[in-house]
Amino acid sequence: MIARRILLSFVALSFLLLGSLSQADAKKAVSTLASWNEGPTKQAVVAFVSRIVTPGSPDYLPPHMRIAIFDNDGTLLPEKPYVQIDFAVQKLRVMANADPSLMDKEPYKTALSNDISHMEKVGGPFLLDLLLTTHGDMAKTALAPQVKEFMTSAKHPLLNKPYAKLAYKPMLDLLQYLRENEFTPYICTGGMQDFVRGYSMDLYGIPPQNVIGTTFKTAFIEKDGRSMLWVNPEVDVYNDKKHKPVAIDLHTGIQPVITVGNVYTGGDIAMLSYGASSTPSLQLLLHHDDAARELAYDEANNASLTAAREQGWVVISMKKDWNVVFGEE
Amino acid sequence: MIARRILLSFVALSFLLLGSLSQADAKKAVSTLASWNEGPTKQAVVAFVSRIVTPGSPDYLPPHMRIAIFDNDGTLLPEKPYVQIDFAVQKLRVMANADPSLMDKEPYKTALSNDISHMEKVGGPFLLDLLLTTHGDMAKTALAPQVKEFMTSAKHPLLNKPYAKLAYKPMLDLLQYLRENEFTPYICTGGMQDFVRGYSMDLYGIPPQNVIGTTFKTAFIEKDGRSMLWVNPEVDVYNDKKHKPVAIDLHTGIQPVITVGNVYTGGDIAMLSYGASSTPSLQLLLHHDDAARELAYDEANNASLTAAREQGWVVISMKKDWNVVFGEE
Repeated sequence: MIARRILLSFVALSFLLLGSLSQADAKKAVSTLASWNEGPTKQAVVAFVSRIVTPGSPDYLPPHMRIAIFDNDGTLLPEKPYVQIDFAVQKLRVMANADPSLMDKEPYKTALSNDISHMEKVGGPFLLDLLLTTHGDMAKTALAPQVKEFMTSAKHPLLNKPYAKLAYKPMLDLLQYLRENEFTPYICTGGMQDFVRGYSMDLYGIPPQNVIGTTFKTAFIEKDGRSMLWVNPEVDVYNDKKHKPVAIDLHTGIQPVITVGNVYTGGDIAMLSYGASSTPSLQLLLHHDDAARELAYDEANNASLTAAREQGWVVISMKKDWNVVFGEE
Repeated sequence: MIARRILLSFVALSFLLLGSLSQADAKKAVSTLASWNEGPTKQAVVAFVSRIVTPGSPDYLPPHMRIAIFDNDGTLLPEKPYVQIDFAVQKLRVMANADPSLMDKEPYKTALSNDISHMEKVGGPFLLDLLLTTHGDMAKTALAPQVKEFMTSAKHPLLNKPYAKLAYKPMLDLLQYLRENEFTPYICTGGMQDFVRGYSMDLYGIPPQNVIGTTFKTAFIEKDGRSMLWVNPEVDVYNDKKHKPVAIDLHTGIQPVITVGNVYTGGDIAMLSYGASSTPSLQLLLHHDDAARELAYDEANNASLTAAREQGWVVISMKKDWNVVFGEE
């Protein structure tokens, strides 16, 4: 009799335990988005995820189909200045210190005699030269340690924090919420793929295999008696605008159900339109409208916000939708 | 007192339950490889995986670093004939039936008036034309349904089974064993990426995002008022030999700890050498030496087996190491 009571109690306790666990999980999922204010934006995210993951829902997708694509600069962390340009300029400085004759050559001359906000104004061929000089003509494995060192030591010139502390907290929470719901978040960036891969795991928990970006031509060569991958100083693919959908398909073969970009250059319009061409899908577009906590800026021709209105994308207002922008240190 | 006994019993039962579960898991891991005969090959695999996944092991790697790369044709399923060539010829037949004037043009003429073993002998430009005609100039989404239909309906000409039943059972077991140990298996194939993506989940449980292969140039275009990806009949990347390491890095950014290829064309030598250049790592090379159950063939210059001997790769003998080749129907 005692044995039977114990057994029954065990069964009852087990059910209680399982019940409380799954309740806790559900609560956790909602509390994961605590950095998002209550309102239509947060509701749209939670409602959409629920449609995708609920067994029996007409929109249910198995986990391997739950691909979520995030732009990087301006979507997951600030883009003024571009982190990568700051990295490149600082790397040129190290190279020129080791060989002062470089100071008279480009891109060293322009990069080292101006402040970083000047670089973007110079633009085009100069920026390309800057990237080719700092990211090309090296062993494939050489860049990542330099990136890791930079991200923890260099500080954002305006926000005065190491770049490693500047991922937007609500985006980290969104990534975590998606992982809890068995989505796989990818980055699709116009930045150099190897640069972002150097810090994506540390900053966002996104491993290198889920980072898609701009690439240089690479070859498997023999050097000093060893086989290795070598990055040549020549662009293979510039991953912006209409190339983003092509690259997403190349790397995943699956139309993303969630795509997330931001207002500024129009670089994410094609990617969000691509996402919107499959059903069910959700598109999120971050608007930098928060001068007090980050920055407020728009897009010259307003094309991203126009596309959002026409295609029914959800616009995230940094000011209204986020109750915190950066995490605690 | 009763309550305390119940509580203690509950705690004890919980531990018993947890204990028996983890014992069962360990047994399952070993029994997963039941299709592999006991011997040095199986021992090498189990010992290596154990070094990678055991916390505290000097070779321990976190799950996101556990990348395992498999060649496809001749490694995961038979390569005589190449499945994709059979698919292409049958697709040409459908196209020529719809428009008989095509019968007088190449590649239709050669493909439809010879048996499939003739195709590989003709080789080079003809095979390229065959692929461009059957895999290019179409919407990105058009191919996958054709591939799914083909794999379940078309039969291997010698083995007389649908291709969908011809994945090697020991390789399926190895894939499952690796997944149980939180490795991520990828395919890196000389075949068309979109073709293999069309069946990889059904045959191997490998989702499209983990398939790397040969690609055609693709563009994001407007057509009939809709945005879509369009595959042009032009090779972008031919993913064989020395391109395989480049493509593995492009798609994963991580040196694979396990690489698996086969003896025949030498197409996997660069990929296995790339894997071998990182420590710890394991390379497996399948030798088709089983005329009774599949086929027995070698490589013209023996380069793959020579590289295996020189670089310490483990050679899998289909005849000696596998107690079954294909699974039950």
